[in-house]
Amino acid sequence: MSDSQDTAPSTRLGELRRALEEGTLRHVRRQVHAMHPAEIATLLESLRPAEREIVWEMVDADDDGEVLLHVNDEVRAGLIRGMDAEELLNATEGLEIDDLADLFQDLPEAVNRQVLKGMDQQDRERLQTVLEHEPDSAGGLMNTDTVTVRPDVSLEVVLRFLRMREDLPPNTDSLFVVDRYGKLLGALAITKLLVSDAGLTVGELMDTELAAVHVDAPAVDVAKLFQDRDLVSTPVIDAQQRLLGRITVDDVGDVIRDEADHTVMSMAGLDESEDLFASVWQTMRHRWPWIAINLATAFVASRVIGAFEGSIERLVALASLMPMVAGIGGNAGNQTITLIVRALALGRITAANARALLAKEIGVGLVNGALWGGLLGVLAWALYGNVALGVVMTVAMTLNLLLAALAGVSIPLARHHFGKDPAQGSSVLITAITDTGGFFIFLGLATLVLV
Amino acid sequence: MSDSQDTAPSTRLGELRRALEEGTLRHVRRQVHAMHPAEIATLLESLRPAEREIVWEMVDADDDGEVLLHVNDEVRAGLIRGMDAEELLNATEGLEIDDLADLFQDLPEAVNRQVLKGMDQQDRERLQTVLEHEPDSAGGLMNTDTVTVRPDVSLEVVLRFLRMREDLPPNTDSLFVVDRYGKLLGALAITKLLVSDAGLTVGELMDTELAAVHVDAPAVDVAKLFQDRDLVSTPVIDAQQRLLGRITVDDVGDVIRDEADHTVMSMAGLDESEDLFASVWQTMRHRWPWIAINLATAFVASRVIGAFEGSIERLVALASLMPMVAGIGGNAGNQTITLIVRALALGRITAANARALLAKEIGVGLVNGALWGGLLGVLAWALYGNVALGVVMTVAMTLNLLLAALAGVSIPLARHHFGKDPAQGSSVLITAITDTGGFFIFLGLATLVLV
Repeated sequence: MSDSQDTAPSTRLGELRRALEEGTLRHVRRQVHAMHPAEIATLLESLRPAEREIVWEMVDADDDGEVLLHVNDEVRAGLIRGMDAEELLNATEGLEIDDLADLFQDLPEAVNRQVLKGMDQQDRERLQTVLEHEPDSAGGLMNTDTVTVRPDVSLEVVLRFLRMREDLPPNTDSLFVVDRYGKLLGALAITKLLVSDAGLTVGELMDTELAAVHVDAPAVDVAKLFQDRDLVSTPVIDAQQRLLGRITVDDVGDVIRDEADHTVMSMAGLDESEDLFASVWQTMRHRWPWIAINLATAFVASRVIGAFEGSIERLVALASLMPMVAGIGGNAGNQTITLIVRALALGRITAANARALLAKEIGVGLVNGALWGGLLGVLAWALYGNVALGVVMTVAMTLNLLLAALAGVSIPLARHHFGKDPAQGSSVLITAITDTGGFFIFLGLATLVLV
Repeated sequence: MSDSQDTAPSTRLGELRRALEEGTLRHVRRQVHAMHPAEIATLLESLRPAEREIVWEMVDADDDGEVLLHVNDEVRAGLIRGMDAEELLNATEGLEIDDLADLFQDLPEAVNRQVLKGMDQQDRERLQTVLEHEPDSAGGLMNTDTVTVRPDVSLEVVLRFLRMREDLPPNTDSLFVVDRYGKLLGALAITKLLVSDAGLTVGELMDTELAAVHVDAPAVDVAKLFQDRDLVSTPVIDAQQRLLGRITVDDVGDVIRDEADHTVMSMAGLDESEDLFASVWQTMRHRWPWIAINLATAFVASRVIGAFEGSIERLVALASLMPMVAGIGGNAGNQTITLIVRALALGRITAANARALLAKEIGVGLVNGALWGGLLGVLAWALYGNVALGVVMTVAMTLNLLLAALAGVSIPLARHHFGKDPAQGSSVLITAITDTGGFFIFLGLATLVLV
């Protein structure tokens, strides 16, 4: 029995690093062999490319496929580049069909042909069914290894039928009940099979209130369904209600994590499939689009200030005070946009309740502007002995916080409305708006009132 | 059979809003009754308090408990405030022990006493076992409704024993095998029970390579274990390897989502348990600590500029150019800190590989500084016809990007090292550093070289 406490990944990682540095590779090999594929994947992602290759060589060939499935895209591509056709072919062996489909798009054409040639007719057809669907749809997540029964047979017959098999597919919690045309009628929980009278028929016991998903449903909706209804597996059907396959909870856990990960990373303009230890050049290639956008927007903000250089020359205090207006607006805007992006991802916002949210965020902006902006106004007055400057400070802060609320709510909603990802670069965009807006409002007001 | 596609939560939410506005409440009631508790919870979170109360009244009393479990902390507290003791008592009925324990801490003392009085001895002891443990530990997540068998009995006996029960606990995929002292020996998958020869004994078939978790293990580690090993349920043991309960995948899905959610929200200085439609005052109370910190840091940045007002008076171009140095540094720092915070949460960083990461981020900062900083330097030269100003711009950008890389890597690592949450307010902190640092570096250099 292994206790997860003794083998926390972080401790193990530290030990492995030491072992790698000291060159006691036998020790590393033993540790790697004791790890599960997903844990090896996390380890590989945590290593620099040179060390990664050493550890990857040590992985049991039987685990290669599972490890490839668990590492992120960029690391996966790197590992695959270092393998020859035979190693890749071996790695695909023993994988479930849905996992194999995942890997398929990253393997060289020649290897894929070999894989298909080595499969029996039924598996080949199953794989092709899964490959026909988008990877981020129910069809791309599903497995076709369902166990089906007819409604008119008795439990006794079902039990005898099962006992003829050697094993059931992983995470089988239900048998699916279909008619002779393959149309899904219901499901029979395995636990019911165990506790019920064997003389009853499947039709009498089956659950017909199923949360079946359509084959084209987006993966994130499927994940939400699993979370909402605490499912272990769910049937996948076509428009004619015919059973095509099933999705299990292990496929969905990855979708949930990847989706949340994607929000965090893409808000800052990052790609979640990036290798943590990519080279400097690779990393720059990933990040440059948002840096370029950031540069352009920063230049615009700078030109806005440039237009008011005359005012700054006459009252240099403006130069010291203007970044406060911009900076506090930026942080407030970041809070609002984060709230909205996340609420959109969790399905808590629609066009219907957006107005109420906007009203609330504008209210918060107003009160914060009056309160904290007032405090800053008093500080500016005390520092520079200029009451009017203090008043301009307070008004500018309030206006920029209103702008932050407005932009923070409407940018992600508009992007969502037009089918774009609301998270993408949202942090860069909101800062651009509150910077440019803050400088313009503050310097413009000051020029009108003070100079 | 219900198809999730026909009833996407967002569509339903829009319809409900219309129905609420038009006052066709019968229609709303029918829709609410057709929804699952978790879906009702999402709906309630999406409504303003006044509407929320109307819909909450319509929820079937049998679903009250499940709905309360699924809404976030602040919304839950609001709903509970509006319920009397009897309604609360009814809501607790039929809940699983681990869920009841979750709710217990939010219910009034008097109701809890009533609940305990209404339970039988066994359930009361089970509840107390769960309540003894931290909510975010394995003990707080576990359920005590395990089905156990002895290793020396035959499958036939087990099958007969199960058939005497009316049902098995939800998500039962394995029976746990224990000795006479309650020590966990292994697990027998239910699917094995169905496909194996009934004459074999449990001991011959059981899986002894279990991923058992210690009762004090942190919930996030348990979630990672479920993800890594694709588990449906796992046994919880004490230091003497005695079986205390089991954790199921539905409990863990919430942990995964909450954890990622927490990262996104707390980076911006937000609280993920906040009610989306809290009043302006409530919202301000939640957000004010980070606004206050932000105000203080912005004031420091402003005073740094204040110290260089003499230079700005002599060369006003400095005022226009300085926010570019600060802003681009802020965005770059945000990218680095996001990367590190997320990698820490996913267990990809330890002290062991942190140096390599720092080196990479510093490399990216250097190249970006030279490349984009160079471009900005040329722009500054072109705009103000001052070569030295262009050079100062390029050098300041490069230095500020190095500062951003250094702070972006070391702040979260240091917080993690000292047992603090690395995500908390990280976005506010990094901006403070790159603002103050950017102004100081740029104005300091300019004062030395130009003025």
